[in-house]
Amino acid sequence: MFQKLKGFRDIYPESMRARRIVFDKINATAREFGFHEIDAPSVEHLELFRVKSGDEIVEQTFSFVDKGGRSITLIPELTPTVARMLASRKDLIKPVKWFSFPKMWRYEEPQSGRLREFYQFNADIFGVAGIEADAEVLALAMEILDSLGLKGKYEMRVSDRLLMEEILRKLGVERIEETFRVIDKRDKIPEEQFLGKLQDIAGSDAGLEISEILSVKGTVSEVLSKIGESERGEDLLELQELLAAYGKEITLDLSIVRGLAYYTGVVFEAHDSKGEFRAILGGGRYDNVVQLFGGEPTPAVGFGMGDAVLELIMKREGIWPEERMEVDIFVAIVPGFRKEATQIAMKLRKEGFRVDMDLTGRSLGKQLKYANRINARYAIIVGEEVREGKVVAKNMKSGGQRTVEIGKLKEVINEN
Amino acid sequence: MFQKLKGFRDIYPESMRARRIVFDKINATAREFGFHEIDAPSVEHLELFRVKSGDEIVEQTFSFVDKGGRSITLIPELTPTVARMLASRKDLIKPVKWFSFPKMWRYEEPQSGRLREFYQFNADIFGVAGIEADAEVLALAMEILDSLGLKGKYEMRVSDRLLMEEILRKLGVERIEETFRVIDKRDKIPEEQFLGKLQDIAGSDAGLEISEILSVKGTVSEVLSKIGESERGEDLLELQELLAAYGKEITLDLSIVRGLAYYTGVVFEAHDSKGEFRAILGGGRYDNVVQLFGGEPTPAVGFGMGDAVLELIMKREGIWPEERMEVDIFVAIVPGFRKEATQIAMKLRKEGFRVDMDLTGRSLGKQLKYANRINARYAIIVGEEVREGKVVAKNMKSGGQRTVEIGKLKEVINEN
Repeated sequence: MFQKLKGFRDIYPESMRARRIVFDKINATAREFGFHEIDAPSVEHLELFRVKSGDEIVEQTFSFVDKGGRSITLIPELTPTVARMLASRKDLIKPVKWFSFPKMWRYEEPQSGRLREFYQFNADIFGVAGIEADAEVLALAMEILDSLGLKGKYEMRVSDRLLMEEILRKLGVERIEETFRVIDKRDKIPEEQFLGKLQDIAGSDAGLEISEILSVKGTVSEVLSKIGESERGEDLLELQELLAAYGKEITLDLSIVRGLAYYTGVVFEAHDSKGEFRAILGGGRYDNVVQLFGGEPTPAVGFGMGDAVLELIMKREGIWPEERMEVDIFVAIVPGFRKEATQIAMKLRKEGFRVDMDLTGRSLGKQLKYANRINARYAIIVGEEVREGKVVAKNMKSGGQRTVEIGKLKEVINEN
Repeated sequence: MFQKLKGFRDIYPESMRARRIVFDKINATAREFGFHEIDAPSVEHLELFRVKSGDEIVEQTFSFVDKGGRSITLIPELTPTVARMLASRKDLIKPVKWFSFPKMWRYEEPQSGRLREFYQFNADIFGVAGIEADAEVLALAMEILDSLGLKGKYEMRVSDRLLMEEILRKLGVERIEETFRVIDKRDKIPEEQFLGKLQDIAGSDAGLEISEILSVKGTVSEVLSKIGESERGEDLLELQELLAAYGKEITLDLSIVRGLAYYTGVVFEAHDSKGEFRAILGGGRYDNVVQLFGGEPTPAVGFGMGDAVLELIMKREGIWPEERMEVDIFVAIVPGFRKEATQIAMKLRKEGFRVDMDLTGRSLGKQLKYANRINARYAIIVGEEVREGKVVAKNMKSGGQRTVEIGKLKEVINEN
């Protein structure tokens, strides 16, 4: 009864410190790319999600009827909300570049990298139909991972719905939607069975050829050389060249499908190079969504990245920030000097230091032990010397201590 | 159907910028006071709240039965969760100083300063029974408001359950709990009616005297001089003196009650000096809560501050940050120079600038108009000059522009 719910997390200070560093870095990178932060409701009309994703999504939501009889849900994704927000403001200057890092909830069986409550970073560009926006979004996704230290630890796999359609048409495939649906199952069923299903729908020769195309992975030019001439291929070459200007590399992998009715062009997923975890992030172009919510038809491209897989891969790579508490200064107090100590603590706090202070009146030995356990860099001992405007400053790492004028504390502490 | 829910907010970039500044400042102040950030589930077993607050709270929650048959709720407050988190870690070093700034939800009729979804900053100290922790928490609350520019715009009203009990006992009042319950209604019913109820329960003379005591507001010493000698009064004098060392002033106001079964000592509320809004924040000591959740008996003191009233009062005082978009640099692109422009944008981004870049290929005039509307401080125009390693840098405020070597851009932009 007094346990947290399954798939939910209690984050204690040590772990929160690490998460804060990672989350701040991600948000800072989005800002550097000229994206603007927004914030959205965590609860929406359930219908908002049904319109985009159909009834299936309802199974996976924390949804309920509220006291006013409304069918509502904790948000399982941000896109419908962002599209709703975009549709309801006609005065926005395009392009619109938005990011957000909200909590989301999905009623799924919790497992490694999948929780019932998680954070998901989202970034989207609205109002640009050209490949330039796809490149900007892809570059942001990669720069976020690179700046977190994951460069070389992941592969950005890109596919394209338009190129696939072109290929299927060239091969004479008529049941294009059904073919996509089979391709989407490629990693979930045995190879033999997959090929059989593909040939059933696309025909024997075309099925075989599609299967071969799906297994080719490489640069855009490498993959195009297997496919032959392609109109859409030119756009993807341009995308690859643009990304090279950003200093980023992608892998064309036509087996990536992601959401059938939803994406309209480029789709992408960042995958752990060691193949251990599910996708780190995923996204693509979805030009038909905003109008679903009553907005003008608006080209859109974006991605989402949950925090759970990101944490797993960063921990495996040893680049998750250290999980520990931290303060700059602990103010230890000799009995009788609490008021002076408080004044000194406030002075240091106003200078921007993170300052804890004894509140217990226990022995100096115990106070310093506490200072050590909360990882204070310095302990300031306020006692008799304060009558001459001085305190003892103890470097908690080196153990060295000296008597310092209060006015010079800042200088001493900033030394290291 | 495609509207947001009543009492929920869409926060667009202009407004988000202001909120981010305010929220960051609040969190920074908490860190300066040596509090450590935690993060907690937004959904909990409903029972967790019933245990602390009784059935009444259930009426005001977004609560429901999940697909696994659990009675769960969106959190309407943080204290039960924090107490649960504390109770489930026996290894924590005391004192524990935690803060958090999560979203919360209450199913109440939305009105000015009261929303169905809101943020609430929370800070608590666990493990200190003495008034020193009350002082630290009160000082943090006031420093947060002061650092936001609200100094002199609010009054910190403090009362104390122990002092009130002492007074009531001295006056021979026997039905102490019932008397508190009446006092809690003081501002909600007419004065005459209030006095009548008080006299019904406390007796005619005592009722009159209590009513007089409740209307005295001032420094601790001023109020104590009306009450006569008091044991608990000494603690409150000490609290006032300690707060003076923090540079903070409180008003003793015994009419403040706040949560009857819940608080065990000092209680406090920060009120708009102009009396226009409901309380900005409120808190107090609650030494009996942690054991409710299976923890050791643990002294505790803390407060919560919602974002809605804070925003109202800061806006009224003209100190809410300006609501506008902001980027540092917009990179405008002459046709044919997209790759060079992208490289320059990435270089500036890696230097920490917030850089937007044209993605549309529209005319330079339109690009610069966009730069103006997103409040870019500088526009960099990448064209022919880039062949000699130069770009045009345009100060968007002054309108002045000059040709600058790419290597010197950082310097030029940092000039103002």
